[in-house]
Amino acid sequence: MSLPFRMSKRALRTPEPPISWLMKYALDCPQCISLAAGFVDTDTLPVEIVGACTDDLMASADTGRAALQYGTTIGLPALRRQIVDRLAADDGITFEANRVDADCAIVTSGSQQLLFLISDVLLDEGDIVILGGPSYFVYMGILHSMGAIARTVPMDADGMDVDALERVLADLERAGQLDRVKLVYDVSFFQNPMGVSLSTERRKRMLQIVQRFSKRHRIFILEDAAYKELRFADPSLPPTKKFDTTNEWVLYTGTFCKPFSAGMKTGFGVLPKEILEPVLRQKGNHDFGSANLNQMIISRAVARGDYDRHVQKVRAGYRKKAAVMADGIRKYFPAATTWYEPQGGLYIWAELPASIPTGPDSEFFKAALAQNVLYVPGDFCFYPNSGYEGTRSAMRLSYGVAAPGQVAEGIKRLGELACEMLSSGVAAK
Amino acid sequence: MSLPFRMSKRALRTPEPPISWLMKYALDCPQCISLAAGFVDTDTLPVEIVGACTDDLMASADTGRAALQYGTTIGLPALRRQIVDRLAADDGITFEANRVDADCAIVTSGSQQLLFLISDVLLDEGDIVILGGPSYFVYMGILHSMGAIARTVPMDADGMDVDALERVLADLERAGQLDRVKLVYDVSFFQNPMGVSLSTERRKRMLQIVQRFSKRHRIFILEDAAYKELRFADPSLPPTKKFDTTNEWVLYTGTFCKPFSAGMKTGFGVLPKEILEPVLRQKGNHDFGSANLNQMIISRAVARGDYDRHVQKVRAGYRKKAAVMADGIRKYFPAATTWYEPQGGLYIWAELPASIPTGPDSEFFKAALAQNVLYVPGDFCFYPNSGYEGTRSAMRLSYGVAAPGQVAEGIKRLGELACEMLSSGVAAK
Repeated sequence: MSLPFRMSKRALRTPEPPISWLMKYALDCPQCISLAAGFVDTDTLPVEIVGACTDDLMASADTGRAALQYGTTIGLPALRRQIVDRLAADDGITFEANRVDADCAIVTSGSQQLLFLISDVLLDEGDIVILGGPSYFVYMGILHSMGAIARTVPMDADGMDVDALERVLADLERAGQLDRVKLVYDVSFFQNPMGVSLSTERRKRMLQIVQRFSKRHRIFILEDAAYKELRFADPSLPPTKKFDTTNEWVLYTGTFCKPFSAGMKTGFGVLPKEILEPVLRQKGNHDFGSANLNQMIISRAVARGDYDRHVQKVRAGYRKKAAVMADGIRKYFPAATTWYEPQGGLYIWAELPASIPTGPDSEFFKAALAQNVLYVPGDFCFYPNSGYEGTRSAMRLSYGVAAPGQVAEGIKRLGELACEMLSSGVAAK
Repeated sequence: MSLPFRMSKRALRTPEPPISWLMKYALDCPQCISLAAGFVDTDTLPVEIVGACTDDLMASADTGRAALQYGTTIGLPALRRQIVDRLAADDGITFEANRVDADCAIVTSGSQQLLFLISDVLLDEGDIVILGGPSYFVYMGILHSMGAIARTVPMDADGMDVDALERVLADLERAGQLDRVKLVYDVSFFQNPMGVSLSTERRKRMLQIVQRFSKRHRIFILEDAAYKELRFADPSLPPTKKFDTTNEWVLYTGTFCKPFSAGMKTGFGVLPKEILEPVLRQKGNHDFGSANLNQMIISRAVARGDYDRHVQKVRAGYRKKAAVMADGIRKYFPAATTWYEPQGGLYIWAELPASIPTGPDSEFFKAALAQNVLYVPGDFCFYPNSGYEGTRSAMRLSYGVAAPGQVAEGIKRLGELACEMLSSGVAAK
């Protein structure tokens, strides 16, 4: 018998992520139509661009060697410059308007790593993070692991309900807990899992609210803009970061994974310098810098214009598949379904009538699986015991990776299943 | 005036890493000969191999897309298989002998990330880690950050002094602190910074000692084998992992950064399954998997035999530069210098007479800088207040990145400086 070993409190607090559970189903059911995976569309991956950019780099010993040598913890200067130049060109986020320059930009191993680093640098056990209900479940894993306390604010078609945010903060203040509030986490474009974006008006108000409740210390907005580039039509909404004119309040994270290549695992952030410093110290401990090769390939693709051309193509693809999914929902789902037609991103959130729970142990989930369709149960997207439970009857449906025909077929099966359960009353038991 | 924000205890504990301080000097002094950087030799970076392997991958839509799509948290199955196959072929580490198979292997963003993950999963504030004096200073940063307590064991030409390790553990037991001991950290091949390897006899004894003191819980050996492949002659010493016949005691980490490409930031580990699980849960929070593209390129290079051919070339290059450095030390350094002629790796550790401190504020360091030579002060490599302070007069000298002529010139300047200070008595003040 092996001698037991003792894990850290953090490890003990870290649950098996729902994604592992879903992956297991996906592996056990290779013939399944997966509307669960948040993977990007395999057909649109930039094989030729990455091939050409790598050839370009490796054709010269100088650039080739630079790409294969260590970079710096903060990331490739050229790429960091491109990141802030793009924010300036697309959104008018500049040094003059926002005190943002390339010194505020960091490159990380996907934006996920930056979400982790920021949280690690700010959160002690018992600190409070406010997030939308529903919210991105992988970020919830970080909060579990750090022993943070989540407070959930309802979401609607315009993103996080900022009136409710205000009430939650006022409640916390009355309870003497305002000093523990560190972050408001918000996926501000085409949110995972709801697909909705925070309205411009609410962006401004969210910032004002956070500023007003920052009494003895600063409460940050952690703006996760992972899906920003996947909009189906121009113009883009302004990032919440745009309204942070002093570069003090909004920690902005973005990624090249969703619009370009997930396999290159490259994300970024634009942060106030005083928080960039502890983030860099912690990243020094994690890996002292993300893969330099990947950063140089992406920087080359951006410089050549390949990146922008590619993003246009990707958008068109998702727009088409989102329409297929939306049509299917209109046609096959129960009329009483609440859902949100996306303007970008990878997801549709559908809430079935309350008599059809969709959780991992539900009849509906099992029946869907029996029909070879996999979705993410909405339950995973609500932080337990965080003040707002939301519905038990939602699904996150992704058109990211499935082909249009599969999207249509998967939605048809789910919709017919829901209608059948509704009419037979099976789900009520 | 900005409102202050409140950092986590972990962030407050995380110091500016010495590497940032050194980088700043390196940037301020571009004409400097750097014997400080642990960078790999730029001239030997595998530009053609990476170009060819990437072409190979991108030539087919199937493999190209697979490389650019998300992988899994644990890493590419083909690469994990190659990792364990190589351990079997090179070291006889097999399932039969050690219960090690591909299910025990994980791919990470350099071995640094795995050192962090393992520490994070095991260490609470106040837990104890035993390490050599001197030791790898970037690992010390992890310990600072986690609030761990370090206990230092002296090193000699055969690696960590295992008799001293035994005494330290016995002392901790008497003090009732054995329950806090989680890890013995050891760079077992061509140690950073000393360049020495743990002798075979000591590897066996280290394992026995750790087993003997594992009374109520398991104390692990964290074997950092980052430099294993950079040996100047065959055969390799057996990894400490080889003597762990039940795959319970040794957490083995390795890397493709040092022997192949630092810019691809790909490392790995072979772990007992019961600790791999919490490590994977935590990696799920960090990044849910390292860049798939890099793993596929490396896997391809290994499969083609390019990787092994490249490693042979790299070894020959470092062997030559190590000899240049060793010759310079023999010729120019004070006779009373204690140093260790390396059989592999990237470093020579030189201890000057005690009258010449070499720390970052020392006369010697400043004089070296004035002569445009940069080294890592030995002081950085001893964990403060950890029971063994070591010498204040050591330098870590790397022949990794400097050209042979630069190595020779840098060593000449340092040696002459030391001799001059010794004869003039300047250093004594």
